[in-house]
Amino acid sequence: MNITHIEHIGIAVKSLEKAIPYYENILGLKCYNVEEVADQKVKTAFFLVGQTKIELLESTDPEGAVGKFIEKKGEGVHHIAFATTNVQDSLNEAAEKGIQLIDKVPRKGAEGLNIAFLHPKSTLGVLTELCEKPSDK
Amino acid sequence: MNITHIEHIGIAVKSLEKAIPYYENILGLKCYNVEEVADQKVKTAFFLVGQTKIELLESTDPEGAVGKFIEKKGEGVHHIAFATTNVQDSLNEAAEKGIQLIDKVPRKGAEGLNIAFLHPKSTLGVLTELCEKPSDK
Repeated sequence: MNITHIEHIGIAVKSLEKAIPYYENILGLKCYNVEEVADQKVKTAFFLVGQTKIELLESTDPEGAVGKFIEKKGEGVHHIAFATTNVQDSLNEAAEKGIQLIDKVPRKGAEGLNIAFLHPKSTLGVLTELCEKPSDK
Repeated sequence: MNITHIEHIGIAVKSLEKAIPYYENILGLKCYNVEEVADQKVKTAFFLVGQTKIELLESTDPEGAVGKFIEKKGEGVHHIAFATTNVQDSLNEAAEKGIQLIDKVPRKGAEGLNIAFLHPKSTLGVLTELCEKPSDK
């Protein structure tokens, strides 16, 4: 699996309206994009920190994955996304090595990336996303 | 607060012996250092991913912070560490803005960094570390 860097860290928050001022005014980061990802039942806000993004996730549906996460665990880190040069190859390799996949083929995520998730049962408790820019291929 | 990049992501694991092979064989990362930080009651293993490190944390004492974290929440992301140009200035600024601090002055962390933690009650559920290389000043 050819991982080049950490593309983003997904953080579940109850309210973007409350969270964005914390990241901007306390940490001094700049929110450059707010986007709804209907498929994942979240509204997202992005901040760039070096080569990695912070992706804040506000649930738009209590039955969505982030809504359930907050209900169960409260606010906090939801997933880590690694940039790879080829998500499908990485998924195939992980599956061959016995890793449980959430997505067997990549799908579209925020910012137009091709993304797929590995199951946290196979990844030592860390919900793990793999992603690539479509232009990488 | 002048944050330049994400220095590392701290991940609590039950066993470095089991976790290191996952990060090496599945994700394809290379463990370049294993170090005990007696002060924090952990044994750590480091992997470099782009400009950010993954810091695996195995508890050496059930009464330590990581031991308690795993007991309560299981394995998973424990903290995010941001690199700043000056930890003390960042702490002062955060405190002035009403953020609850765990450390009022920096202390020594793994790899000789000067580190300090902000309290997750003030940081929307994310245990937040600030750190700097001693040579940065």
